[in-house]
Amino acid sequence: MAYFLGIDLGGTNIKAGIVETGGKLINKLSIKTNADRPMEEIIRDMGNLALDVIKDAGLSVSDVEAIGIGSPGTPDNEAGVLVYSNNLPFNMAPMRALIREVVDLPVYIDNDANCAAMAEAVAGAAKGTKDSVTITLGTGVGAGVIVNGRIYSGFNQAGSEFGHTVLVSGGVQCSCGRKGCFEAYSSASALIRMTREAAEANPDSVLNKLIEENGKVSGKTAFQAMRMGDKAGAGVVDMYTDYLADGLANAINAFMPEVLVIGGGVCNEGDPLLIPLQEKTMSRPYFGPGVRKTSIRIAEMGNDAGIVGAAMMGKSCVDDGIDGKACSL
Amino acid sequence: MAYFLGIDLGGTNIKAGIVETGGKLINKLSIKTNADRPMEEIIRDMGNLALDVIKDAGLSVSDVEAIGIGSPGTPDNEAGVLVYSNNLPFNMAPMRALIREVVDLPVYIDNDANCAAMAEAVAGAAKGTKDSVTITLGTGVGAGVIVNGRIYSGFNQAGSEFGHTVLVSGGVQCSCGRKGCFEAYSSASALIRMTREAAEANPDSVLNKLIEENGKVSGKTAFQAMRMGDKAGAGVVDMYTDYLADGLANAINAFMPEVLVIGGGVCNEGDPLLIPLQEKTMSRPYFGPGVRKTSIRIAEMGNDAGIVGAAMMGKSCVDDGIDGKACSL
Repeated sequence: MAYFLGIDLGGTNIKAGIVETGGKLINKLSIKTNADRPMEEIIRDMGNLALDVIKDAGLSVSDVEAIGIGSPGTPDNEAGVLVYSNNLPFNMAPMRALIREVVDLPVYIDNDANCAAMAEAVAGAAKGTKDSVTITLGTGVGAGVIVNGRIYSGFNQAGSEFGHTVLVSGGVQCSCGRKGCFEAYSSASALIRMTREAAEANPDSVLNKLIEENGKVSGKTAFQAMRMGDKAGAGVVDMYTDYLADGLANAINAFMPEVLVIGGGVCNEGDPLLIPLQEKTMSRPYFGPGVRKTSIRIAEMGNDAGIVGAAMMGKSCVDDGIDGKACSL
Repeated sequence: MAYFLGIDLGGTNIKAGIVETGGKLINKLSIKTNADRPMEEIIRDMGNLALDVIKDAGLSVSDVEAIGIGSPGTPDNEAGVLVYSNNLPFNMAPMRALIREVVDLPVYIDNDANCAAMAEAVAGAAKGTKDSVTITLGTGVGAGVIVNGRIYSGFNQAGSEFGHTVLVSGGVQCSCGRKGCFEAYSSASALIRMTREAAEANPDSVLNKLIEENGKVSGKTAFQAMRMGDKAGAGVVDMYTDYLADGLANAINAFMPEVLVIGGGVCNEGDPLLIPLQEKTMSRPYFGPGVRKTSIRIAEMGNDAGIVGAAMMGKSCVDDGIDGKACSL
């Protein structure tokens, strides 16, 4: 059995685990990121966490084939460098070189949304397929594209920014600077905005009652109100699923994957979200006669997606003979 | 020197040519498609045209490595079948088997937009790059995506239908059934629609004078009026390039190619189209700090794109060891 080590680098926590060839997670450990430290300290802690998780699994360094790191931002896997990250103090960070000062293993780096897609493709909702797309609906809309079992990285190595394709030309201002992005209409933040607007427009609705009770608007508010028979709540869900379905149909027409995986907290709403969403989405793509249709599925890897995907990204790099020791910085 | 034969199957003409390894076209011949005939006759003529073009180049069949066919519609290159074509009488057409009855060579089939992208990637505007996207602005909007030097075919084998991603949710009705597609705002047909609407809204504009003189609205009318100082014409060009730039920026954010190639008759307008288009497009994609930027270029392969791309698609299949003799129908 070959083992791969995955590190999921986040703004709050750094998680690491040992993963078997087929994507099975053996163990995992987690430490705080403390993102306001110098990057060298954070990276050294990542290396030490890797050593700890190897020991915790009852293995030694030589049992592990490679370390894969999933990070927010823009990786340069060829140079072994994290070019830039929005939420972390990394700017041309020589991650491969610094990790290798602590653990002498090949090190590979990719974007966290890409790693989540890899996890679903190897061991989750898109297992057994060669071409899949995973869309994560969170504060933003993340997208990872798997082509022929490999992460599609594009020329910039960060992969698809499908969340920043315009769905409503000239529409709502997006954080990226464009107007009307998929993310601005389909993220959890967008759902909250739509809910707030509907509450303001319908002061007698259940929406307002729930917002008062909970002290805030959340991604659950509209669904909760809808379940209580509230028309304004149902209207928000209808509008949100309309935009989301348009964006998912766009992803299908752009990439024609075998499986389109959707993840993120909003997927916990279950059938009240999924049934209309699947109906709306599948009625929109452009399928000629005889063309095989994409399946839409819910993400299965949950909180382990980052670790498993990073490890399996590392495995794919080893399989492809990519140099995990080179550092051009 | 290895030679590959490319066949460009169109609704009006069938074109064939011999192409060298590097993408250089040696010779070409063309016959009428006469698309109202039974498919067997059309395919037999394609085989005979292949024999003619080999002879015309002073070669024999054994000098040619493979035949690549670019066709409208949905190919199944594994089965050797053209699953469906909108404009031709092909429905589960056993193209590989029937061609091979005439010429004993490996036969490969792909979509014509994909082949055009392959031609630009091997010998045209995206030469020397691994990842490129070619968008053709014609009656519709065709898209071909090249990933790592190979056509991206997706699960359905037809590749990206990027022209049918929604740019204006709930917008203009598209021929595909969706509303607000990129194609409905950026094809030559869309430009003609916008020109007609502007002429109606501005009865005293130069647009109307030109339409009367030419007896029709064309994709050139608005540009011509703009050059004559017409405000309504300039307004159409501004609106058209705005939507087109949004769609091109979407293609960049979706695929992050090294080069985005645009082709089609409207590109003949030159700088009055290209300068605002490049400015608008490059101001919109989502590039974090340190990220390499996509270049936008004009297609270079012209009318030979179909032949050269089909031949080079065949070459890539040979290089990948794909079976060009199997037929599962």
